[in-house]
Amino acid sequence: MSGITFLGGGSFGTALGIMLANKGYDVLIWDRKQDIINDINVNKRNSRYLPKAVIPFKLKAINDIEYAVKQSKYIVLAVPSHVIREMCKKIKPFLNDDQIIINIAKGIEEQSQKRLSEVIEEELPKNAVVILSGPSHAEEVAMEVPTTAVVSSSKMKYAEEIQDVFMANKFRVYTNDDIVGVEIGGAVKNIIALAAGICDGMGYGDNTKAALMTRGMSEIVKIGIKLGGKIGTFYGLTGMGDLIVTCTSMYSRNRRAGILIGKGMPCEEACQEIGMVVEGVKACEAFYELSKLLNVDMPITNALYNVLFKNKNPESEVHDLMVREKKSET
Amino acid sequence: MSGITFLGGGSFGTALGIMLANKGYDVLIWDRKQDIINDINVNKRNSRYLPKAVIPFKLKAINDIEYAVKQSKYIVLAVPSHVIREMCKKIKPFLNDDQIIINIAKGIEEQSQKRLSEVIEEELPKNAVVILSGPSHAEEVAMEVPTTAVVSSSKMKYAEEIQDVFMANKFRVYTNDDIVGVEIGGAVKNIIALAAGICDGMGYGDNTKAALMTRGMSEIVKIGIKLGGKIGTFYGLTGMGDLIVTCTSMYSRNRRAGILIGKGMPCEEACQEIGMVVEGVKACEAFYELSKLLNVDMPITNALYNVLFKNKNPESEVHDLMVREKKSET
Repeated sequence: MSGITFLGGGSFGTALGIMLANKGYDVLIWDRKQDIINDINVNKRNSRYLPKAVIPFKLKAINDIEYAVKQSKYIVLAVPSHVIREMCKKIKPFLNDDQIIINIAKGIEEQSQKRLSEVIEEELPKNAVVILSGPSHAEEVAMEVPTTAVVSSSKMKYAEEIQDVFMANKFRVYTNDDIVGVEIGGAVKNIIALAAGICDGMGYGDNTKAALMTRGMSEIVKIGIKLGGKIGTFYGLTGMGDLIVTCTSMYSRNRRAGILIGKGMPCEEACQEIGMVVEGVKACEAFYELSKLLNVDMPITNALYNVLFKNKNPESEVHDLMVREKKSET
Repeated sequence: MSGITFLGGGSFGTALGIMLANKGYDVLIWDRKQDIINDINVNKRNSRYLPKAVIPFKLKAINDIEYAVKQSKYIVLAVPSHVIREMCKKIKPFLNDDQIIINIAKGIEEQSQKRLSEVIEEELPKNAVVILSGPSHAEEVAMEVPTTAVVSSSKMKYAEEIQDVFMANKFRVYTNDDIVGVEIGGAVKNIIALAAGICDGMGYGDNTKAALMTRGMSEIVKIGIKLGGKIGTFYGLTGMGDLIVTCTSMYSRNRRAGILIGKGMPCEEACQEIGMVVEGVKACEAFYELSKLLNVDMPITNALYNVLFKNKNPESEVHDLMVREKKSET
């Protein structure tokens, strides 16, 4: 039992699955949608979520979750953040203690404001949990564009094991023992990316977006340190690196949703248009609450919350952001 | 005498001149090229360096440097970094002590490795010197895209005076008393932008560039702290903010030169093609030497130096950068 099972046939899971299959692993993707399974197995494609990639022979798909979980040592949770807990409950009866759970979703649980590794450890206390994060858009991973990622765990020996599993010629994996920093940076950057997309959609320029991203970074650091993360992590690949790629790449669904919203589309409609989960929307709600609870000033998160959930005009929110700042930078 | 003189009719000087003229100031641009002066005065355009902008009535151009310098309280050095010293020598006979020198070039003096404010203070010891920096591409400033900038000085009361002069509705100016950090961040980011452009030119993706920029940022911080700058400055608008805009915008001449080099064009030819000074090339040489002198590891600067001046293959340099890193992120 040394294979890898991905629970969820989305874009990032599929891309990593392709990479690992090409590395020689037996990869299994579980998904509940039969059309995706057939597409992967018959056409060797995932036309819906990763249309340009060709699926290698060693990657197969299945809709029997018990079989999928029992087949592999490594179980990758490749579902959106809000279904992580449900997925853990679903697979628990089929797991044994030696299996390692790897989470690739970025976010926090909305109701409890817990980090995803906390959610998983709560549901599956006997299994090791490893987080994989970093600036790694699926489309580029599948195309073997040189990419970096970071693994973290509360038990670092498992992170090191997963580092070896995922390390490839064009996919460099680093370890980082600051799991709080890795998870919080990955969650908050989606908020900033959504805001950056709105900025783009409104027709503002590169100067404006760079300023927004710089302040967004300091928002990540402020809340992240309050939650126990380390500053070096936030300025590393899983914080700043992921922020940059998510705010500037057209592969970013958070950014693309933001662009639509900036052009005047209501949030819900924009998310439907993207056709995949836009994590920044949920993260914005969660961190809006969390920032009030912890008394941390998060002006971009607040402004985005007003636009997404209070029907405020993006223009006036951007104006307020520009004007509110004190006259000294520091 | 309350007007503003820009020495040099390049893109950023012209853009700021337009903004200040629209604010009501009498603005004078000195340039030695008669065609630019005629274009500005007759056609109300600077077709060569800022083709899309319309020059307002209150901005005029002249090629008499004595007149230009004697006309205004505020003298903006709007020339490339390598001619700053020469320009200071040239204007010294016409200056009185009350005039304030504002520098908008980013770089360090190649031979002496001095910051530009140090060069100016050496040549014009009786005048106050203020640095203006930040993520502010000229083309967008001229289009009134919301932009942020930072002013710094060894005598902060002058920085505050210049903040008031330049502050406009769509141009927010902050002060920062860390002049070392402001100048070093602005200089080193051009090196990283050139490298990021090469990365783009070679067809690498957003994932790769985000990783490069993240490591570039840590290179800025390492050398910058060694030189006496503050970490908060490097992660602010003049460091990270300017890095982001320079690495991602097509308005960045450093990035554009890098793209050409990444596609195989020799450095000199690429710089000619850009038609304006590519500050990153000079900065790379200067910081290559400085990093050896100060014993600071600057892997991206080294790799870029090898590509620009030692005819090394960008592909193998990028490969080395990807592989060299230790397996832990921190």
